[in-house]
Amino acid sequence: MAAGTRERILGVSAEIFRRQGYEGTGLKQIVTAAKVPFGSLYHFFPGGKEQLGAEAIRVSGGQFALLGNAILDASPDIVSGVRNLFNGAAQTMLATDYADACPIATVALEVSSSSEPMRQAAAEVFEGWITDLQQRLMAAGIATDRARGLAIATLSLLEGAFIFSRAMKTVQPVEMAGAAAVQAIELAIRELAGGAGKG
Amino acid sequence: MAAGTRERILGVSAEIFRRQGYEGTGLKQIVTAAKVPFGSLYHFFPGGKEQLGAEAIRVSGGQFALLGNAILDASPDIVSGVRNLFNGAAQTMLATDYADACPIATVALEVSSSSEPMRQAAAEVFEGWITDLQQRLMAAGIATDRARGLAIATLSLLEGAFIFSRAMKTVQPVEMAGAAAVQAIELAIRELAGGAGKG
Repeated sequence: MAAGTRERILGVSAEIFRRQGYEGTGLKQIVTAAKVPFGSLYHFFPGGKEQLGAEAIRVSGGQFALLGNAILDASPDIVSGVRNLFNGAAQTMLATDYADACPIATVALEVSSSSEPMRQAAAEVFEGWITDLQQRLMAAGIATDRARGLAIATLSLLEGAFIFSRAMKTVQPVEMAGAAAVQAIELAIRELAGGAGKG
Repeated sequence: MAAGTRERILGVSAEIFRRQGYEGTGLKQIVTAAKVPFGSLYHFFPGGKEQLGAEAIRVSGGQFALLGNAILDASPDIVSGVRNLFNGAAQTMLATDYADACPIATVALEVSSSSEPMRQAAAEVFEGWITDLQQRLMAAGIATDRARGLAIATLSLLEGAFIFSRAMKTVQPVEMAGAAAVQAIELAIRELAGGAGKG
């Protein structure tokens, strides 16, 4: 029962922060949406809004990673996996009228210069995403440093395109960014084959 | 005198929105920082905070475009221009402890689903940046559609890398994203030369 309340508060917070950001969200809105008294929120989150924000970043970031990894796992190879990742993101944006993009980017940008606990939570989530994708690229034979560069570039393309697609209300940015990510990964894999062939 | 007051309010607003976002900013903070009475703010911006937000997006977006275009104009070609753009962004982040990245991304993400006038302002600014860069790529001989795709990918790489670099407090994402943008543009130009050579 107690665990359920904590999770409900956290889930509701993550959803509200994702939609309207951190700064513009009041705890009153969270306790109302979660149907809990203020005392309950402070019982589970003695650090208040900042602790809630940091934990919400970790929860949302983890869910987004699960979603991404499920798409990559269901794809026959890393190139089609990354293609499917961007296509899935474009479909989700269309289905939600461009509301659902990255669940933590807005909050991460808002708080990176103002809240050290929340910045650290975002940094850990991002490092986790980068390392996950880097390891998948390394499993395809790409060297460590290049795999990290490609992972960062791919995730930057996705995050940046989300900003443009949300504001411009078109999936074109996500589609073009996806094509660029696929091209860069294909090139790295082709060079690998070429290098092996020449060796 | 009157024009000076309007500009001061707008400049102060743009700076505050850039640093702490739109939702968390109150008009009281703006009139205090601009040293004007509330009446003056509503005289120049009868639409209140939302009008101020939309105009601040246009002003900040225009300044960012001027800065980017100045770097591109000062570079001998588009490839070194884009390289200098990312290097300059990395240097600015280091110099400001990762505070100064894109002046409108935070606000654009916050308001895209909640304020139509502000979403439209952001969309116009982004379309302007994309078209500027697309035309520079076309001037280097790249075909219209591919130039647009490359422009969107380059700007997505920059915006996405800003999110990671700000949270992770390292310029590595901006550097890796810059390398990916340069590689994609070089490839397009090389194919152009190859195509011409074979033609």
